[in-house]
Formats: sequence, C-alpha cells, structure tokens
Amino acid sequence: MNERILQLLSGDAKDLAQLRGEIVTEKSIDIALLFEKTNKEESLRLFRLLPKNMSADIFALISADIQQSIVEGLTDNEISLITNELFVDDLVDFIEELPPIVVTRVLNSVDVDKRLIVNEILRYPKDSAGSVMTTEFIQLPDNHTVRQAMYDIRETGMDKETIYTCYVVDPDSRLIGQVNADTLIHADPHQLIIEVMDGNVLSVSTSDDREVVVGLFSRYGLIAVPVVDNEGLLVGIVTIDDVMHIIDEETTEDFEKMAALNPSDDPYFKTGVFKQARNRIGWLMLLMLSDTINGSVIASYENSLAVLPILVAFIPMLMGAGGNASAQASTVIIRGLALDEITFKDLAKVIWKEVRVGLACGFTLGLANFIRIFLMNGRDAVLSLVVTSSLLLGIVFAKTLGCLLPIGAKKLRLDPAVMAAPILTTIVDFATLIIYFLVAKLVYHI
Amino acid sequence: MNERILQLLSGDAKDLAQLRGEIVTEKSIDIALLFEKTNKEESLRLFRLLPKNMSADIFALISADIQQSIVEGLTDNEISLITNELFVDDLVDFIEELPPIVVTRVLNSVDVDKRLIVNEILRYPKDSAGSVMTTEFIQLPDNHTVRQAMYDIRETGMDKETIYTCYVVDPDSRLIGQVNADTLIHADPHQLIIEVMDGNVLSVSTSDDREVVVGLFSRYGLIAVPVVDNEGLLVGIVTIDDVMHIIDEETTEDFEKMAALNPSDDPYFKTGVFKQARNRIGWLMLLMLSDTINGSVIASYENSLAVLPILVAFIPMLMGAGGNASAQASTVIIRGLALDEITFKDLAKVIWKEVRVGLACGFTLGLANFIRIFLMNGRDAVLSLVVTSSLLLGIVFAKTLGCLLPIGAKKLRLDPAVMAAPILTTIVDFATLIIYFLVAKLVYHI
Repeated sequence: MNERILQLLSGDAKDLAQLRGEIVTEKSIDIALLFEKTNKEESLRLFRLLPKNMSADIFALISADIQQSIVEGLTDNEISLITNELFVDDLVDFIEELPPIVVTRVLNSVDVDKRLIVNEILRYPKDSAGSVMTTEFIQLPDNHTVRQAMYDIRETGMDKETIYTCYVVDPDSRLIGQVNADTLIHADPHQLIIEVMDGNVLSVSTSDDREVVVGLFSRYGLIAVPVVDNEGLLVGIVTIDDVMHIIDEETTEDFEKMAALNPSDDPYFKTGVFKQARNRIGWLMLLMLSDTINGSVIASYENSLAVLPILVAFIPMLMGAGGNASAQASTVIIRGLALDEITFKDLAKVIWKEVRVGLACGFTLGLANFIRIFLMNGRDAVLSLVVTSSLLLGIVFAKTLGCLLPIGAKKLRLDPAVMAAPILTTIVDFATLIIYFLVAKLVYHI
Repeated sequence: MNERILQLLSGDAKDLAQLRGEIVTEKSIDIALLFEKTNKEESLRLFRLLPKNMSADIFALISADIQQSIVEGLTDNEISLITNELFVDDLVDFIEELPPIVVTRVLNSVDVDKRLIVNEILRYPKDSAGSVMTTEFIQLPDNHTVRQAMYDIRETGMDKETIYTCYVVDPDSRLIGQVNADTLIHADPHQLIIEVMDGNVLSVSTSDDREVVVGLFSRYGLIAVPVVDNEGLLVGIVTIDDVMHIIDEETTEDFEKMAALNPSDDPYFKTGVFKQARNRIGWLMLLMLSDTINGSVIASYENSLAVLPILVAFIPMLMGAGGNASAQASTVIIRGLALDEITFKDLAKVIWKEVRVGLACGFTLGLANFIRIFLMNGRDAVLSLVVTSSLLLGIVFAKTLGCLLPIGAKKLRLDPAVMAAPILTTIVDFATLIIYFLVAKLVYHI
C-alpha cells in the first residue's frame, strides 16, 4: 500500500480526502512506519492529514529523527496539541532525543502541570525505572467504595495507559495494594477498596535499573508494575509494552557485546558508516594487539618449528577448536546467567560440569583427529598423539575458562556478555599454542 | 526463606500448619521455585499442603520433571482436581512432557469436554500458534447488548485467562471484532456489541508459526491475539505471558545457533553432561575438519615459509582480526533481520555499507599494525606492507561475507543465526590465509 499512499499524498484535494479516509482504517504503527518512507515535506503533509484523535498515538511511534523534522515544520500551537496529548513516557522519550535548541520550544508548549512531571522524570538516571515509567495510571484511595472507584475509572480511565490494574494508596499516597479491573467488576459495589484489594503488591523503586523491572515482569508474568520513590510514595507505573522494547534493546546489547561491538541503540540503516566503524574499531584494535602476543609465542618457538615444520599446519585447527569450544561454553553460561538459571554460588558445580563436558568433547574430537592425522601423515603415531593430546587439553581448558570468565564477571558486577567469544578466543588461542609447543618440546626434545 | 520452609516441611503437624499459613502470603511462582529444592517425598508433601485455590496455578509453574514426580504420587482423584483446574494451554504443556505411559492416566482424569479440546490442541504441529493457544477466552455474540455482555463477563470471567480483551463473533462463530473491557465500562449499556466493537481485529491462524505470533505482539504492542482456524472460526487466544516465554526461548535458540550449539529447551542444570556434550560435538567436529583445510593451506606454502619463517608469526593476528570483523558484521545483520530492520531487498545497500565500514576499520587497524611491525621488526617496510595489506583485504572480505551469508540464509528460508561467527570464521580464516600467501608470493617472489 505504501507506494499508492505516497502517490495520493502528492495529489490534489480529492486524493488527500481519499487518503484521510483510508488512514482511519489502519493501525497506528502501520501509519507510523509509512513516515519512514517520506521526505521532510511529505512527512509534514501526511502528519497534518491525520485525524486529531490518532495523531499523538502515531507521533509516539515515529522514529526520533522524523519526529524532529516534523516538529520543525509545525507551529507552536500544533506542537502544543501533540505534546499535551502524548503519554508522559512517550513525551519524555521524544524530548530526550531532541537537540537542546528545540527542547525549550517543545517544553514551553506543554501545560505547566505536565511540564513539571516531565522535568521530574528527565532528572532520573538513564535506564532507571524512573526514566522509563509513565504517570498516567489509576490510583484509588483505600477508603473509597467499589462503586466510587468504578465511577472514577469511568471518568478518568480514557487518559490512562492501563485501567486493568489500579493501584491503592493510603491517605499519605503510600502504595499499599493493587486491584484488578476484573475484581472490581465482580465485587459488591458497597465494599471498600481496602477490603477487595491485594495487599501483596510488587513494586520497584525509581532508582532501580530497568533490568530489575524486566526481571520482575518475566518472573511474575506482569502487565504493569508500580514505581515508588524513596519514601514509598506511588509516582508512576511501567507497562508491558515498554518492557517488551527494553527486552529487545537489552538482547541486542548482549548480542553486540558478545560480538565485540560497542552497544548502540540506533537501527542499522540509521547508523552512518563512520559511526558503525567507530563502534567496531575499539575492540578490533584491542583484540588485534592481543593476537600479536600469540604471534610472538609462535615466533619464540621458531627454532622448534624449523626442526619440525609440519607442526605449523595444525595450528589453525587447534586454535579453531579451542575458540569454538569456549564460545559454546560461554554462550550457554551467559544465557543461563541472563535467565537467572545460574548464579555465582553454582560456580564449582558449573566448572565440574564443563570439565566433564570438555573431556567428553575432547576425547571424541581427539579420536577423530588421531585417526585422520595417523592416516594422512604417514602413520606417524607420535605426531598424531602430540596433536591429539594438545587438542584434548585445549578443549578442556577452553570449556573451563568459558564458564569461569562470565561467572567471574557477574561476581565483579561487570556484564558477563563482555566475556564472550572474542576475548575468550584470544586467551584460549594463547593457552592452546603454549600447550601445543610444550607437549611438542616434551615429546620431541626440540 | 527456602531452608526454613524445608525444615518446617519435615516437622510435626504444628510446623505444617504454620507453613500453610506462610504459603498463602507468597506469590505462586516463588512457591513453584521452592519445589526445585525438594526431593520426591518432600515435593509431594508440600504440594498436598497448598490451598486448593492456589494448587493448579502453582502446579502450572513447576518444571516438567517435578510435575511428573508429583503426579506419580497422587491419587486419580487428586490428579483430576488439578487437571480440571489448569488452563488448557498449561494442561497441554504438562501433558506434552509426560512419558506416554502416564499420559492416558492423566487424560482420563480430565472432564470429557476439556479432554476433547486438549486432544485437539495436541494435534497441532509443534511451535504453531494452535499448539501454544488457550481456549479460555471471552467470546461475545455481536447482537448482544453491552449490559448482557457485562453480565456474561461477571458470570464466566473468573475462569478466563484474560477479560481485558473480549472477542466478538457472528452467529456462525466467525471472528468479526474485539472490544476492550474499558470500552465496555465506558459504553452505554443499551448499545449493541457490534456498535461498540473494533472491527479492525488482528488474528493469527492455528497453523502460523509462533514466530509470527511474537512478531505481531512486538509490532502492535498486544496483550492477547485471537487464533482462528482455516474457516475463520475463533478457536483460541495466545496471551502475552506465553509470548514472553516464547521470546526467551527463541532468543536462547539464536544465541545457541550463533555459538555452534544444537538448540535445546532444557535449562543448564537439567541437561546431563552427555546431552550437553552431544549438543556441542557435531558442530565442533564439522568445524575442526574444516579447519584442517586451513592447515593444508599453510602446509602447501611450506616452502615459502621455510624461506621467510617470520611470516608464520602474523598468522594468528590475521586470522583473529578476520574472525572478529566477520563476527561483528554477522551479529549486526542477524539482529537486524530478527527485528525486521533489514530484509533481502536491502542486500546491495547492506553490502555497500559493510564494504565501506570494512575499509574504515581496515585502514585504521592497518595503520596501527604497520607502525607496530615497522618498529618491532627492524624497520622492514616491505614486510609491514605485506602484512598490512593482507589485513585490510581480509577485513573487507570478512565484513562483506559477514552480511552476505546471513541475508542469503534468510532468503533460502534457513535460520540466519546459523551463519554466525563459528562457520564464518572458518571460511574467513581460509580466505585470509590465501590472501596473505598470495600477497607474500607476489611481493617476495617466493
């Protein structure tokens, strides 16, 4: 449909009227994605065509750079209409990405009450629960009746992000419970909220990391979680749609760290070539310099290699096997740590398991390797044994280090994902080479 | 609290009474996790202690092996109480993991109506929308009034997985719309459902892959999605809590494939050493054999290396840099494909971008490399240039292949995650060695 819509967009008044009619039947996100294909002028025209009741919803879903280009073209009055319709968390996301020079103009367009709240949220540290929460939630006083509560929800519910879970506060605005919409629907209208609420309510603090929030959602299957400040006062909620975005971002971050990339929030095509290169060069440089140490190991055994040059031919296989074995172990462990299946006190158990897995893999691979070398290198049992035993030792070492480093990183409050294949491979390569040359020197006395 | 509870569990009647009192204040999932620490006898005692209204909820959250051991100890009557309380999707999950011999006993415990539904769902292919859906949802006839609908919800809502979204069907049970609880609460009680419903409803088919379901939830921020059969009849819903589990499983699967592991659903500590080893050996073996080809490349240039043995010392650095550069590119691309940011028709654009990123990384690393070799290897500019130009070419090749393979895999309907670091590294190592030796031969005529 995209091309036809872009065509209508550059048409006459009749085309535009038809376009407006079609937009109403589309989902907000689908229209938001249309904006990605438009140029600056078209995006402004398309935005002004949106029905009033959809424009804020759609605006919240447009990517930051296009939001900015639209706002630059709008009048102060038009900006004010959007910003006052946006949910607080979406408004904060939008403002956070704006260049400083536009921030004042946008903030001035917001009604004073909402502006105070936005400024408050902007002060919370990045990635804290406070910075991702929204303030549109339903708060019920504990001494109201179910009937009063239902009336309140009917009156104000439309402006709230979720009415499915309502939060109950005492007269000091302290969070003391929660009540679901279905409980209210089923309850006797004359009962007090404090009688029907669930007093066993989970909450997070404004300063908690957003990973703590995600952990709670996953563990307890929540749709929303209340956020309280240092004094236990209810200040906001985080909803499942935001949590799903956070999960996507955190997963991407883990993938990036595990591939020696600097984490970046920007989508692939929105990141320029030099930014992409910058995100990659740091680690490449560090790893390249570490790998030169492995070169020096080889160079330092130059005399041994001169005596038995065939030894060089097995280096790629030994280094490859060690690298792959450590990548497997570290990935299993990093994922287990992320899903809370593994903790630091399991360290000994994990190492013992990985040593045995390493032995099982090492013996199987070793056997295949021994046979291959024996048959293809003039039935030289000694050479086959030297390579095979180095392979076995290298794999066991790789598996052990592959579980030790991520768990150790977690203990030191570092992100275990950093201790993944790239850094591990470099260390394991080093160890494999040393093992190989030591075994060779021992056997051949070279 | 765990240890104290286990202590109370082996105590006298008074201890058990106290324990029962404490359990009531805990969240279901926290009690379910307690079972992981118990032996067979304790788990049975703990389960019988649970309040009736919590036992099915908690049972659904216990891991499969412990579910089985509990069921083995229960009477037919007790089993029947649980299975008839469980939501259909949880019951299906439970039955799917049971050994065949127990399945009949469990199925016989289920009321006949529910058993028919369970048998139906068990027939859907693994990982299809049909296999993960539940049948406890609210279905409203389009010709009922809002008042009638609210009455229905009050009467039956407690047994449904979600009352927040209700699905509207025509007289033939065909899905024609949806209506949210908040709309019903705000609507005039005399209006017809067909007047207040949203007719623009998203749905999935029973045969759709669960990844399609996850995609819809992510894109549209859903809480539940209806499932229809081939004739458009509404047969079930999938809810967000199940989708979050699916996301965890799919992400784990991607991580595993990218580290050359056979995907496995089992948590780390529930997988025995030999199963773990089996999941890892296949790929290790394949990659080891491929790496021996790289060994043959080195062996085939043995004469050149004999002339200039210092060349060997740079092999680990060159192979390492190529491997890391390709891992970065493939990870960025695989993640972009998973999040639908990149599609096959972007191929040329992606390659062009990666070539430039590769050149930028290659030149920066090359410069550092040139200076280091020049200074540390007797100011030998020719040697420095040979290594550096091989490095540059290797990195550009690695970046290009790192985007080409995952996108190509996707086009061939393979999982792009398989084309990640391990397989790529082996190919890139091969190419890097060839490039290196060709450049060296060209320059040194050896």
